[in-house]
Amino acid sequence: MVEETISKRAEELAKDQKEISVSEFFEKNRHLLGYDNPTRALLTVVKELVDNSLDACEEARILPRIWIEIKPNSPDRFRVMVKDNGPGMTDKQIPLALGKLLYGSKFFKLRQSRGTQGIGASGSILYSQLTTGKPTTIISSTGNGKTSYYELMIDVKKNTPEMVSHQFIEDGKIWHGMKIEMETEGRYIESRKSIPEYIKQVAIANPFADIIFDGPSGKLEFPRSAKELPPLPKEIMPHPHGVELGILRRMLKATKSRTIASFLSNDFSRVGSGTAKEICELAGIDPKVSPQRLEIEDSEKLFKAMQKVKLVRPPVDCLSPLGEELLIKGLKNEFKAEFFAAVSRPPEVYRGNPFQIEVAVAYGGELPQEGSVKVMRLTNRVPLLYQEGDCAITKAIATTDWRRYGLSQSGRSIPVGPGVIVVHLASVWVPYISESKQAIASYPVIIKEIKLALQEVGRRLQRHAAGKRRAEMQRKRRELFDRYLPEVANAVAKLTNKKPGPILNKLKEMIKRNTKAVVDGRRKEETGRSG
Amino acid sequence: MVEETISKRAEELAKDQKEISVSEFFEKNRHLLGYDNPTRALLTVVKELVDNSLDACEEARILPRIWIEIKPNSPDRFRVMVKDNGPGMTDKQIPLALGKLLYGSKFFKLRQSRGTQGIGASGSILYSQLTTGKPTTIISSTGNGKTSYYELMIDVKKNTPEMVSHQFIEDGKIWHGMKIEMETEGRYIESRKSIPEYIKQVAIANPFADIIFDGPSGKLEFPRSAKELPPLPKEIMPHPHGVELGILRRMLKATKSRTIASFLSNDFSRVGSGTAKEICELAGIDPKVSPQRLEIEDSEKLFKAMQKVKLVRPPVDCLSPLGEELLIKGLKNEFKAEFFAAVSRPPEVYRGNPFQIEVAVAYGGELPQEGSVKVMRLTNRVPLLYQEGDCAITKAIATTDWRRYGLSQSGRSIPVGPGVIVVHLASVWVPYISESKQAIASYPVIIKEIKLALQEVGRRLQRHAAGKRRAEMQRKRRELFDRYLPEVANAVAKLTNKKPGPILNKLKEMIKRNTKAVVDGRRKEETGRSG
Repeated sequence: MVEETISKRAEELAKDQKEISVSEFFEKNRHLLGYDNPTRALLTVVKELVDNSLDACEEARILPRIWIEIKPNSPDRFRVMVKDNGPGMTDKQIPLALGKLLYGSKFFKLRQSRGTQGIGASGSILYSQLTTGKPTTIISSTGNGKTSYYELMIDVKKNTPEMVSHQFIEDGKIWHGMKIEMETEGRYIESRKSIPEYIKQVAIANPFADIIFDGPSGKLEFPRSAKELPPLPKEIMPHPHGVELGILRRMLKATKSRTIASFLSNDFSRVGSGTAKEICELAGIDPKVSPQRLEIEDSEKLFKAMQKVKLVRPPVDCLSPLGEELLIKGLKNEFKAEFFAAVSRPPEVYRGNPFQIEVAVAYGGELPQEGSVKVMRLTNRVPLLYQEGDCAITKAIATTDWRRYGLSQSGRSIPVGPGVIVVHLASVWVPYISESKQAIASYPVIIKEIKLALQEVGRRLQRHAAGKRRAEMQRKRRELFDRYLPEVANAVAKLTNKKPGPILNKLKEMIKRNTKAVVDGRRKEETGRSG
Repeated sequence: MVEETISKRAEELAKDQKEISVSEFFEKNRHLLGYDNPTRALLTVVKELVDNSLDACEEARILPRIWIEIKPNSPDRFRVMVKDNGPGMTDKQIPLALGKLLYGSKFFKLRQSRGTQGIGASGSILYSQLTTGKPTTIISSTGNGKTSYYELMIDVKKNTPEMVSHQFIEDGKIWHGMKIEMETEGRYIESRKSIPEYIKQVAIANPFADIIFDGPSGKLEFPRSAKELPPLPKEIMPHPHGVELGILRRMLKATKSRTIASFLSNDFSRVGSGTAKEICELAGIDPKVSPQRLEIEDSEKLFKAMQKVKLVRPPVDCLSPLGEELLIKGLKNEFKAEFFAAVSRPPEVYRGNPFQIEVAVAYGGELPQEGSVKVMRLTNRVPLLYQEGDCAITKAIATTDWRRYGLSQSGRSIPVGPGVIVVHLASVWVPYISESKQAIASYPVIIKEIKLALQEVGRRLQRHAAGKRRAEMQRKRRELFDRYLPEVANAVAKLTNKKPGPILNKLKEMIKRNTKAVVDGRRKEETGRSG
């Protein structure tokens, strides 16, 4: 090909190039958002809406009450409605927050929340219109006496909201909350990875929420078992050890601080004026220079000094773990087991992001004897049902040696037995392996923390099992005594020339006292440990 | 909380909400693009740039020549340079195509290509600036005598290109191509999942490309083994069976066709005027009505009729498979095995997207006896090195019963033995499980096609092994004869009263003839099969 032709071809190719809207991208790649088959798609719709409702209630400090309704319009089409008693959305915000992908507030905040991407609910509206061609209905009020009514679609080519209808409903009612209703393609199931299973796990992970689910097979209610909201996690500044050079340079340009020293102590967590000076000295930079004036070489020196200096870990009030008590309460509500234990690990940090691992187990009792232990994976109180094979939680469980704790396990797999294992990762930024947020990436420090927590509950489980074996031995000994006691009593009666009746009674009492002590001791130990 | 407070809170929450730029999103979620650890990040940078170079050359019908240079600037920082002899980019296009995520032409075309997302190369520039704070240098010419020079960064908040430097180099040279050079954090390894391994596989999958790799340990050259480009895949229209209702409605609004009938036959593949009429009849719609005027109910009827009508499968000239010959050529270049076989399956369709599976094996010879078979996964000629556990290809190999074909295999895992298995998926739209494009989603029809191809090469392998066993038996029989031949000759000599020498020679000749026929027969059979 001669050069001239190539030049023309290059110009032709240039003509075809254009911007791809993020809505177009995720419409075509909807499997990345969790819409890869009808069963999972229906669950994803419900999950995204419920996540948003719970986040909104918690942010506004309202004890959540969530109504979920799913009714079939045809075998493969459902009407989904999620309603909450949250703060609602202002009339102006509704189209942007729901009719545009990549829009929101949580993405920018270093604070634990369910949503973080600004894709969730708008993604479900996108899927609804893709599969049914219909708009989503939104009714909302913030308690100011005005109720907004929207029928919304997404202009996919522009990634902007398209208002099919917008009006105020004048019914004089004062209320607050949000009601989202849409029609969507889907498949409804009730076995594992189902919507009822998801809602049940939401109830366990959010015991302060009232949830009412009206599904194709009838109504299920999950009344709240805790009467108080967990404390609102606080927003934190980034930690110097978790910031990258490119982001540091952007922060330097954007900061309102006038000197490097004040920039360091204002715009980061855990940097006081002393540490700020230390960093500047290490970097060989005048602490009074303006952040905007820093050359690239100097910002690199600053960056390196920030990594070198010793710092307290990031604050952890940005996290809102469930706590051992609530974890056990949640499990006890749902499972009739004989043993419960929970561990909340101290917070740790990956790439500057604080996170905390919590693990709980239920064991024995009426839990099914057959098959693998039931695993519940939670991130920021949200249950994960898909992609379990790719999740750091599954990997941590499978690579823990459960035989040491008395469970059967073949190779590196989930242990077998009448048990439930709950693992909760609370973090300001959960590293999901895809936008569908169903599995945690395998960061070594996260896997390590999960394993440490698992080992701790494992040891407690093992002690419980050992106690149970001890009690069992006592019971057998007692049975043996019981059987031979009359003979012993008779023999003693003959030797002492007394009546056998009172001797038998005394012997029985003695044995009862001994074995009771053992059983009580075990009970006491257990309660102390699992509380 | 009283209603008034809640209303205020809702307004505060609204204030925090804003648009998240797609650059911000992927900067924070860079593990989704393949930048989750330094080793993988360095590979991803190289991969994205090489993918683009190969696509550009193929589109402009130029036999590709790619230079790749990786040199350490410090133990954890590398200078990466990729240069090609492609058509280059027009001066105007460079900043948009490389300084903006979600920008390109391939996303919109139903045609096989390596890139599809408009994220790849700009994503690598984003990662470079994130980890080093530095711009990327781009030098390009389309053969028109002008050479563009750019130093480019991405304005992350706006997802727009930021030109640090832009000029024309006036050196009077006429050339075409593209040179991209950047500094990036990374880790360089040479074992599996390494850059040399990736480049070797690129060479196997693109035998028409000349590749020169100058890495930290020296130069490697992969000269092209094929002198012709594969035919350029053609762009196709969407197939009615692969379109969803929401997209159909958008197409109806955007079409230039004046009637539904012409819309159906112009804007879709495999719909002639007869079929268009049939669809309209089935839907109960006047074929002469304007597409723009179709109500939602009617578009739903149209959609259902489109699904019902019988249609020829989508055209397959949008695909560019490697072909059995090139597959075997590629393998023979890299592996000294004793047996080669390849299968190209006929094209199939998932969700309206044509795809084609190709499988090749190499077996025996100097391939390592120990450990699992080596698996090479390819999509549209691009080697995949990561996320193998989540990939449909790995799953299809592991769930094929290789013991039937003479390989050892424990449970559902990759078989063991001296073999290489190559699987290539060619498609207009590969369903990757994440934006890093390292694993194929497990669509049942894709897994089925892969397994059918694997079974076919498996059967050939089994026949080869059976042939080998037969030859081995012949050899042993011959050895036995050889040992007793002198005695037999002596005995015959005594019986016939002749000299033993000539008898022995005749016997030897006879046996040689017999066994040679067997060996030749096997050879002939094998060649016929593996051709």
